[in-house]
Amino acid sequence: MNHHLSSREHKAQNSVVPVGEVQVGARRLVIMAGPCTVEDEDSLLKTALAVQASGAQVLRGGAFKTRTSPDAFQGLGETALQMLAKAKEKTGLPVATEVTDVREIDLVGQCADILQIGSRSMQNTVLLKAVGRCGHPVLLKRGFANTIDEWLAAAEYILAGGNERVILCERGIRTFENSTRFSLDILSVPVVKSRSHLPIIVDPSHAAGNRELVGAVARAAIAAGADGLLIEVDCCPDATKVDGRQTITTGQFAELMPQLCAVAQAVGREL
Amino acid sequence: MNHHLSSREHKAQNSVVPVGEVQVGARRLVIMAGPCTVEDEDSLLKTALAVQASGAQVLRGGAFKTRTSPDAFQGLGETALQMLAKAKEKTGLPVATEVTDVREIDLVGQCADILQIGSRSMQNTVLLKAVGRCGHPVLLKRGFANTIDEWLAAAEYILAGGNERVILCERGIRTFENSTRFSLDILSVPVVKSRSHLPIIVDPSHAAGNRELVGAVARAAIAAGADGLLIEVDCCPDATKVDGRQTITTGQFAELMPQLCAVAQAVGREL
Amino acid sequence: MNHHLSSREHKAQNSVVPVGEVQVGARRLVIMAGPCTVEDEDSLLKTALAVQASGAQVLRGGAFKTRTSPDAFQGLGETALQMLAKAKEKTGLPVATEVTDVREIDLVGQCADILQIGSRSMQNTVLLKAVGRCGHPVLLKRGFANTIDEWLAAAEYILAGGNERVILCERGIRTFENSTRFSLDILSVPVVKSRSHLPIIVDPSHAAGNRELVGAVARAAIAAGADGLLIEVDCCPDATKVDGRQTITTGQFAELMPQLCAVAQAVGREL
Amino acid sequence: MNHHLSSREHKAQNSVVPVGEVQVGARRLVIMAGPCTVEDEDSLLKTALAVQASGAQVLRGGAFKTRTSPDAFQGLGETALQMLAKAKEKTGLPVATEVTDVREIDLVGQCADILQIGSRSMQNTVLLKAVGRCGHPVLLKRGFANTIDEWLAAAEYILAGGNERVILCERGIRTFENSTRFSLDILSVPVVKSRSHLPIIVDPSHAAGNRELVGAVARAAIAAGADGLLIEVDCCPDATKVDGRQTITTGQFAELMPQLCAVAQAVGREL
Repeated sequence: MNHHLSSREHKAQNSVVPVGEVQVGARRLVIMAGPCTVEDEDSLLKTALAVQASGAQVLRGGAFKTRTSPDAFQGLGETALQMLAKAKEKTGLPVATEVTDVREIDLVGQCADILQIGSRSMQNTVLLKAVGRCGHPVLLKRGFANTIDEWLAAAEYILAGGNERVILCERGIRTFENSTRFSLDILSVPVVKSRSHLPIIVDPSHAAGNRELVGAVARAAIAAGADGLLIEVDCCPDATKVDGRQTITTGQFAELMPQLCAVAQAVGREL
Repeated sequence: MNHHLSSREHKAQNSVVPVGEVQVGARRLVIMAGPCTVEDEDSLLKTALAVQASGAQVLRGGAFKTRTSPDAFQGLGETALQMLAKAKEKTGLPVATEVTDVREIDLVGQCADILQIGSRSMQNTVLLKAVGRCGHPVLLKRGFANTIDEWLAAAEYILAGGNERVILCERGIRTFENSTRFSLDILSVPVVKSRSHLPIIVDPSHAAGNRELVGAVARAAIAAGADGLLIEVDCCPDATKVDGRQTITTGQFAELMPQLCAVAQAVGREL
Repeated sequence: MNHHLSSREHKAQNSVVPVGEVQVGARRLVIMAGPCTVEDEDSLLKTALAVQASGAQVLRGGAFKTRTSPDAFQGLGETALQMLAKAKEKTGLPVATEVTDVREIDLVGQCADILQIGSRSMQNTVLLKAVGRCGHPVLLKRGFANTIDEWLAAAEYILAGGNERVILCERGIRTFENSTRFSLDILSVPVVKSRSHLPIIVDPSHAAGNRELVGAVARAAIAAGADGLLIEVDCCPDATKVDGRQTITTGQFAELMPQLCAVAQAVGREL
Repeated sequence: MNHHLSSREHKAQNSVVPVGEVQVGARRLVIMAGPCTVEDEDSLLKTALAVQASGAQVLRGGAFKTRTSPDAFQGLGETALQMLAKAKEKTGLPVATEVTDVREIDLVGQCADILQIGSRSMQNTVLLKAVGRCGHPVLLKRGFANTIDEWLAAAEYILAGGNERVILCERGIRTFENSTRFSLDILSVPVVKSRSHLPIIVDPSHAAGNRELVGAVARAAIAAGADGLLIEVDCCPDATKVDGRQTITTGQFAELMPQLCAVAQAVGREL
């Protein structure tokens, strides 16, 4: 398919998406770090301060979650948004959080600097059209069973609405391999770079599904040319209700950042 | 996972979902037929009368569509709903149509007898919760990349809201095979029957992606124990904007129905 | 790809492969039944007599097995071939068994009436070329991760060697669905029928991985137009070392056959 | 499954596989480069000299090929082995080449320093057992549709025969993504490292299927912790009969090596 607005043919130069003073898609890589889901104020702030100290430039954290089962914890909603707002106030870090309901875009947008479209919403065209009409940067995660072509078509929905601030995020695809939660499609990074001017970051946490594997994939993503990472970090991941097993500790994050910095320099980027 | 409300443990007997005078899940199979997308009033009525004459008991037709690309035809929306209402009035056939936007459930529900949740919306939990609070039967299509377990979990969202009228619909999964549009997972029929009391029908059209293959899969679905079919039929499929290649003609449908009837009898059902 | 020798363009009429007095691909369906792996003489004979009494026309049984792990039971080899020869002598049923080693084709061919190429050997071109030079009918199972196109290309290797007696066997493909062992690609039956003149049968046992699901898929395969079945049956499946869970009992087989007969008649075939 | 001989439980320390004076699995990475298929003596020698000058330590090149279709070029066989032997004599580079036929192991072993088991042969247990009894290092490519568990089980066949010189090679898996030939499973590198003591290298060429994507994946593989690469390089890739589109030029290889060296140093390795 020919996706006009996201294509290199439409715009040859790399797009840089500003998020406050942070530039996503520039020479300097952007690391977005924080808990999968916001669960309490103290942990969130502690985590935010720690990832900031290690060099993260954006705080991530889930307020509204799309869970497979109705019995699973669905996020704290507005309460979580308030916690994120406080952490942002204290650290100055811009905040990325997911929006799942078309009726809550304004609500989420009051707190969030980046609206995240989750993997299960990538083909929710109602939601895509709506965020295409707002002014916020949008982090568009790849659907875990969608081709790169379908992903760029989803970006096209947002761009067609007039919102040019789209950041793509590879987070792993569903395959037959069962020793990891998903299979990270590392080739999607150079494929997207060749076809589109949009910045692309990688979420190493959801694909790995296991914190011991996150570092290797994070390093690989940067070596492959990603513009940054969206990574799950928590001060106490084993106490969390959602995805704790794949969340690295703030201590592990502090050790990982210099490694990422070294790889970034090896490929002509900085961190 | 243990999905309480949809499980055989919760309810041993098969559920029968009433749609007007039609019973989905009873001994008599239910065939839902019609165009992929409603495009004009005359064709719709002509198709509706033809499928009714051949034995279809529900008219299907898309008004709001979730398309991969924003440049693709997105359905006629409210105009299509009005056309469906007219066809329903003239034929007496109950109508099944997709709802994609949580804000339009009431609007669609004024015309539709069955609210369809499309494959790309199966994990749109906002939409699932909302149709779980309405009184309409819900046709829940399997996500093309979702496991049977995730599908039953999606049904659980609807059941948990108090709406017991859930009909499952297998429509093919995404695999590496590239000679068909999707791979119809025929085993899902007996797996669902063993695990759940909910009725399950099969959509042979989307998986096949080619009208010459539809008949064989439709016969197979009934032989495997499905409670009915959701099938794309149009009086002039080659003139349609959406999925015409996989839509059988009203003439092919008239030939297919006696074959389906014979297979139904061979497995102790009727049509 | 254009596979000349297997194509409808090369030969418009359906090929019928003779196996002794049995005709595979004719109006009458052929059921090949027996244990996954031959483990002892008494059970084999008891099973052979039972499936023959129920209407099976070919006895299947494994002598040489390709197992994932070297610690798994690898089959009884020549001893199993002798047991198959005795069962054949007593029942008159032709025998189908797998050949895995190019150096053992003559050995296996002395006992077997049909040489089976297993799923994991479908792209073993050394083996394909070798059976293409022998006079035996070859049962070519689809590789569990191979497209229909690659499957027909594998058949082409055998046909190109001068052996026209090729029977295709769909046995399920590897997908993300994890409630069944493999996903049976029911659409492969009409796709193969449209593209090739070769007969195609279906193995419902390996895909299901669970004997309670086998009947539904067997009925579906016949309704879809398959020319027969390769089905795992054993007098005491719970005592077997290999794949017992997916093997139906001779009692279940006796109940299944009249059902298959009814479906066969519904689609204009006989059994 | 518990694969005893390949596991970290059996042997905690990383295995180093010697190939002449080259050590695979040591701190220094090993790059194996050369044409997909040996097609003529001059090109082979020219390519061998060029990759050696850029730092490759092993020459790769196919003599016996497993092709999907019998009409495709099947490799030059013995003639190619002689060409490889000459190139080895002139450059001193050890040679890696595939063996496909159990009857040709001795023949191939006379020329080859590393016997390669191709992706389509990974579950050819007859071949695995045979190379397990020879003294050559074995490069075991992952089957494109096999899990990591099945891959380690295949290694177990070789180890169980007494041959401890096994090198694993990730080369991409078959998924639904269709913009690349296969999807490189980058997570397999840290998963294998955590479970097994065997060295693992990565083939970036087959997964990419496009030479413009090879560099990014090669860098990513090293960043993820691979012990080396198996990479298709040719002095004139556009003139080759097999896989030319995914083969980088000797010029591109010369540019890539310093980049790989920088990434290697960033992750504590050398090249």
